[in-house]
Amino acid sequence: MAPKKGLLQRLDEGPVIGDGGFVFALEKRGYVKAGPWTPEATVENPEAVRQLHREFLRAGSDVMQAFTFYASDDKLSNRGNESSKKYTCRGINDAACRLAREVAEEGDGLVAGGLSQTPTYLSGLGKENTQKEFKKQVDVFVENKVDFLIVEYFEHVEEIEWAIEVSVKTGMPVVASMCIGPKGDLHGVPAGECAVRMAKAGAHVVGINCHFDPFMTLEGLRLMKAALDAAGVKVHLIAQPLALHTPDAHKQGFIDLPEFPFGLEPRICTRWDMHKYAREAYDLGVRYIGGCCGFEAYHIRAVAEELATERGRKPKASEKHDMWAGGLKMHTKPWVRARASKEYWQSLKPSSGRPFCSSMSQPDKWGVTAGDSTLKQKTAITTDEEIAELAKPRRVMNGK
Amino acid sequence: MAPKKGLLQRLDEGPVIGDGGFVFALEKRGYVKAGPWTPEATVENPEAVRQLHREFLRAGSDVMQAFTFYASDDKLSNRGNESSKKYTCRGINDAACRLAREVAEEGDGLVAGGLSQTPTYLSGLGKENTQKEFKKQVDVFVENKVDFLIVEYFEHVEEIEWAIEVSVKTGMPVVASMCIGPKGDLHGVPAGECAVRMAKAGAHVVGINCHFDPFMTLEGLRLMKAALDAAGVKVHLIAQPLALHTPDAHKQGFIDLPEFPFGLEPRICTRWDMHKYAREAYDLGVRYIGGCCGFEAYHIRAVAEELATERGRKPKASEKHDMWAGGLKMHTKPWVRARASKEYWQSLKPSSGRPFCSSMSQPDKWGVTAGDSTLKQKTAITTDEEIAELAKPRRVMNGK
Amino acid sequence: MAPKKGLLQRLDEGPVIGDGGFVFALEKRGYVKAGPWTPEATVENPEAVRQLHREFLRAGSDVMQAFTFYASDDKLSNRGNESSKKYTCRGINDAACRLAREVAEEGDGLVAGGLSQTPTYLSGLGKENTQKEFKKQVDVFVENKVDFLIVEYFEHVEEIEWAIEVSVKTGMPVVASMCIGPKGDLHGVPAGECAVRMAKAGAHVVGINCHFDPFMTLEGLRLMKAALDAAGVKVHLIAQPLALHTPDAHKQGFIDLPEFPFGLEPRICTRWDMHKYAREAYDLGVRYIGGCCGFEAYHIRAVAEELATERGRKPKASEKHDMWAGGLKMHTKPWVRARASKEYWQSLKPSSGRPFCSSMSQPDKWGVTAGDSTLKQKTAITTDEEIAELAKPRRVMNGK
Amino acid sequence: MAPKKGLLQRLDEGPVIGDGGFVFALEKRGYVKAGPWTPEATVENPEAVRQLHREFLRAGSDVMQAFTFYASDDKLSNRGNESSKKYTCRGINDAACRLAREVAEEGDGLVAGGLSQTPTYLSGLGKENTQKEFKKQVDVFVENKVDFLIVEYFEHVEEIEWAIEVSVKTGMPVVASMCIGPKGDLHGVPAGECAVRMAKAGAHVVGINCHFDPFMTLEGLRLMKAALDAAGVKVHLIAQPLALHTPDAHKQGFIDLPEFPFGLEPRICTRWDMHKYAREAYDLGVRYIGGCCGFEAYHIRAVAEELATERGRKPKASEKHDMWAGGLKMHTKPWVRARASKEYWQSLKPSSGRPFCSSMSQPDKWGVTAGDSTLKQKTAITTDEEIAELAKPRRVMNGK
Repeated sequence: MAPKKGLLQRLDEGPVIGDGGFVFALEKRGYVKAGPWTPEATVENPEAVRQLHREFLRAGSDVMQAFTFYASDDKLSNRGNESSKKYTCRGINDAACRLAREVAEEGDGLVAGGLSQTPTYLSGLGKENTQKEFKKQVDVFVENKVDFLIVEYFEHVEEIEWAIEVSVKTGMPVVASMCIGPKGDLHGVPAGECAVRMAKAGAHVVGINCHFDPFMTLEGLRLMKAALDAAGVKVHLIAQPLALHTPDAHKQGFIDLPEFPFGLEPRICTRWDMHKYAREAYDLGVRYIGGCCGFEAYHIRAVAEELATERGRKPKASEKHDMWAGGLKMHTKPWVRARASKEYWQSLKPSSGRPFCSSMSQPDKWGVTAGDSTLKQKTAITTDEEIAELAKPRRVMNGK
Repeated sequence: MAPKKGLLQRLDEGPVIGDGGFVFALEKRGYVKAGPWTPEATVENPEAVRQLHREFLRAGSDVMQAFTFYASDDKLSNRGNESSKKYTCRGINDAACRLAREVAEEGDGLVAGGLSQTPTYLSGLGKENTQKEFKKQVDVFVENKVDFLIVEYFEHVEEIEWAIEVSVKTGMPVVASMCIGPKGDLHGVPAGECAVRMAKAGAHVVGINCHFDPFMTLEGLRLMKAALDAAGVKVHLIAQPLALHTPDAHKQGFIDLPEFPFGLEPRICTRWDMHKYAREAYDLGVRYIGGCCGFEAYHIRAVAEELATERGRKPKASEKHDMWAGGLKMHTKPWVRARASKEYWQSLKPSSGRPFCSSMSQPDKWGVTAGDSTLKQKTAITTDEEIAELAKPRRVMNGK
Repeated sequence: MAPKKGLLQRLDEGPVIGDGGFVFALEKRGYVKAGPWTPEATVENPEAVRQLHREFLRAGSDVMQAFTFYASDDKLSNRGNESSKKYTCRGINDAACRLAREVAEEGDGLVAGGLSQTPTYLSGLGKENTQKEFKKQVDVFVENKVDFLIVEYFEHVEEIEWAIEVSVKTGMPVVASMCIGPKGDLHGVPAGECAVRMAKAGAHVVGINCHFDPFMTLEGLRLMKAALDAAGVKVHLIAQPLALHTPDAHKQGFIDLPEFPFGLEPRICTRWDMHKYAREAYDLGVRYIGGCCGFEAYHIRAVAEELATERGRKPKASEKHDMWAGGLKMHTKPWVRARASKEYWQSLKPSSGRPFCSSMSQPDKWGVTAGDSTLKQKTAITTDEEIAELAKPRRVMNGK
Repeated sequence: MAPKKGLLQRLDEGPVIGDGGFVFALEKRGYVKAGPWTPEATVENPEAVRQLHREFLRAGSDVMQAFTFYASDDKLSNRGNESSKKYTCRGINDAACRLAREVAEEGDGLVAGGLSQTPTYLSGLGKENTQKEFKKQVDVFVENKVDFLIVEYFEHVEEIEWAIEVSVKTGMPVVASMCIGPKGDLHGVPAGECAVRMAKAGAHVVGINCHFDPFMTLEGLRLMKAALDAAGVKVHLIAQPLALHTPDAHKQGFIDLPEFPFGLEPRICTRWDMHKYAREAYDLGVRYIGGCCGFEAYHIRAVAEELATERGRKPKASEKHDMWAGGLKMHTKPWVRARASKEYWQSLKPSSGRPFCSSMSQPDKWGVTAGDSTLKQKTAITTDEEIAELAKPRRVMNGK
């Protein structure tokens, strides 16, 4: 049997499809706690993590990202998270790699180990401490022989440069992806400059994940591409956006929207939004096309179906999904059969069924970022008094 | 070990929580085809069906409904559905029962076998033919010793009476639930009369599932309760609504909404909607409280958390969900921690992020129902010409 | 010159078009104060009142309603209204009649004198006191030889019966119109019963004005018509609705909507809404078709244009308005010329340009009405402390 | 009696308040035809024009703009407009000046003569022909001794430069205002550059009117101010925006929105929007603050009330409007009295009552401008065949 092709070769040959979001999907399924968002499910409920990997593989994902999001030791013990008492970064990440590998081998998938931003950086504890956290994670990935590394979900280009620095030492391909939008990083570094700095730090693929919807993410990527071209830097691009509409998000993305994280349902993208996203991403030259929070298997399948010609194949899960709503030809009601067309679904503007809700929200605007004292993290859980204190600014703002 | 308590005893003692929707969830995960909506996944991908059962059990469901929706032989071969070439009603239902039993025994769950409306009835082929389809399904449930039967998703009270008639002969408890709203069945029988007729046909529990949102469903149940009280009939009530907002739906429910089935995302209920639903259902006297299409594990968990006091326990999945957003106390951003309160989420009116979409839609209004020639079913798949013909009325209506 | 035809003869022969709203239009133009809403402008700025009458005449109104709304003495001195210090009911009403007559004679218009509900009734001061207020107004109308009386804007059928009683003694035709919706009067009397009682009290024309949008008003009229038919009572029907969309209004109408009275703009009806309203009203058998608050000249013109065939003429103001947007054929931009069609405007769903606003509101629900102590009126102006006290319930409600 | 202060002195001393829109207001009142939008009402119905001037004077306007919009001879005869058969540019403009003067002298108002863009320019007939049209109008203004000239509603900076050139020769103060937004003129000239070019052509006041809502207009003015500052040019700024929300408008403004001109109602600004606008305009340094289409007297009054302290006076019409809804203290219903506060109205997000409409629209995108053959004007009216042909592109676009 020929060895699997590596990530960079695949990207050169055509689009590579990423997977979708784990923390949001597993929170809804009951295995991840919103707030800390840590991935101890790899140890506690491996069958649930395995099943989600399988859904993405079946939907067309070429990559199984080990479920290691926020699995740094400093995050596992942050603000009363009890995970650190039971598990270590090493234990969780090790289990994650094995689950991803197991499913990847059921198909032709690659396994990626992932790093993300740290409370250590946010609390202003400096480069050495921050890289120490990264190193612990990377060591596990090396031991598990993952196919490549993905450093993602960074709000500050400085921190991702530190992460890339640690990652490239492994010799593995490094994908670097910030959770920023067209307005750049939280310290005011423009999106284009972020891209160039990630590439110069050694990343082989650079781009954006999470925090913004597919179309705002592509706006950011357009700026990145222009800056990379201007700087004469050649790297591949990655997009892994939210599956949530966020036209009203400010610089910090959906975190600031009042609906985050328990009222985001009306923003969920349809499969048809994803056809549009996949086409626009491909046309822009993005070759690593996946999703982040909110992206479920059927969203990934829509990406894979849109790019079926470019990839020369449809995903396994299309067995249960005729292109462009073709399955509706089998519906018992004639007026539903009448909807079995591309034209119908492309032009539909779906209603929310919520006449008492508006279409856009005013994001919170705290405007603080790494280095600000309110962002210093701690291991103790937040008290009710602290919560009451935090809730005050909103009341003042709304009262105005 | 003491034998499990039966359904009726449980209902007498307090609220029983149903499970959520299988066809919608498994369609998104890639295992069910929208259009035919048949459950051959029980044979093809048992691990996916098993995992979904487990999520509901973990979320608080007391019932594992065997995944037998639309598994009658006439539906498996309808309009080009190829399932009938590979599987029989018997095979699919048998596998469904075994999967449900397996997971039910991981907890204290009951197993229900389910019947739903048939193409045979819709095509006007009469009582004998229709009951023959039901009988084939019921036989499998009897062999598998399910704990009770649930006849659900019927648009016409006449057909559900026939189904109840077949079901009661088994001697098992029978739950009967129509997919109607406050305006009654598709032949114009009022909701209250439907309830009384179901009870008189022998059902031990009567109510409504699917087709309408939680609050319209409860409106229908209010009418049913009033009619049952007026008729002096004592039965328990069941509600298993959509997890989709449908204030704009007409008599036939969400099927007629232009977003059905591939553009319903903006209508998805939040967990806070489900707290409200569970409380209102309980206060109305409904004791079997579950969900249908769109209901995922976290919706069921919200029902179980709202009724935690009445039930004397929280579900297993609450390990990963502190009541009323308490987990947000552990979030790194202070303004997100500020959202860790019941007041915040109860008063939130979530935006759609879709400024080009309206909040309500005009449903299709074909107004045809069982007996109409356009509803005669056939085994051949619909042709493109037929689809084009069907799409015409909409164009005319929109052009007006 | 033949004498003008009277109201009843005109109604028998075909549709009579009423005028639009004075208080809202003149408030925007700067001549009426929102809050008291009293018509001292007839004395203070007669040219402004005359001009508004002319606009309606030109737009097709057959009736010039003297601007006497809320001009009872008890209202002129209510809650700090200073009008009573300068003017009397008699003076204001007298001026109003002369202005209406002056413009009516510029065309073929009829003059109507109007009565509306009183603070005296609301404060529970009884029939005798209330009728005394009506009598003072009616006397002026008799002296001014108006063509008919219109008793309108009553929330309680009891009070309008008292007003009709006073009015019929004049021997003039009496039109009686309540500001109620399909749910009936504020004391719980059904809409149909209100209609029958108004007719039995002697009114020649009965119906609904103000408080609800055209389509909810017609729903109320449908109920009135059915009850009148059932009671075998033959009278003409009048509709004079708001030119504001109020699908979210409860029993008390737009007064309870949070936007009343200074944020109603997004609810304003288009001329095309009025074509639809006029057609539906006519088809229902309503023969006195006009408008109330928010109805401007162009809305009345739309009613007159829709009924041009039935009336055998178009209004004068159609000189400046080719039917169904025909004037756009003369626009300089080709894409605007492309909108010169009935089809275009009939199918347009106009956007609000307000993505941060919802489409429906939650009305205030105080649920108090005549007889309740909080509705006792007084002559002193409300103090700031009283306002602060009144604002509390909302805060509590919203805080929940 | 001291002579009136001139415009420039007034601007140096504090804010000058403009008037509102005439064509939209008089179209609704029945005196102007939408499509041609020409002001023959000055001759046909002078009392209607006079009354509107009075409303603005009473509301606080310091300027009576003679109603001469689009009164060039080439416009009066364009596309079947019959006005040219009855009236001349000279006759209409002369009457307009006399009406404005008459009302201005009822207060302390200034009279402005106005020029706007021409079909001659749009049809590509060159500078000489275009300036000939302007000259005919300016001559009338000189004869009528207006206080200053206002050249406004130009989409192309080239044409307004030609108009300014003609205007400055009179020696009168010249106000120059383009109907553009933040994206600049229709030939791609940035907003800032337009401002500098208008100033360099000799205008004493430069800015923006019409086509965009108050807040987008101020965005454009921010760009203009920055460019003027950078160029070291000192002139005053004028803002006269729409009273319509247009966040969805593209470069060509509200003309392209599908609601233009007969479905714009849901976009109408409230008085509270105008408080906000007036404050932001003043803070930005704009000193000529008025309105254009949709601006009615009560909108101007809101501007004057917001700036009452800066101007040392409230407008006459505030006799009928206590600041910040104070008049509601006199309302009969206690829950409406509870709304008598600034806080209430500032935080209100008004609903549309239109659940079937979206909040934003897709503008038409023809993207053609001066010089394009489809914009060549002609005197004959457009035929039905031509309209049908024009309507095709939309159908194709929507059909996609």
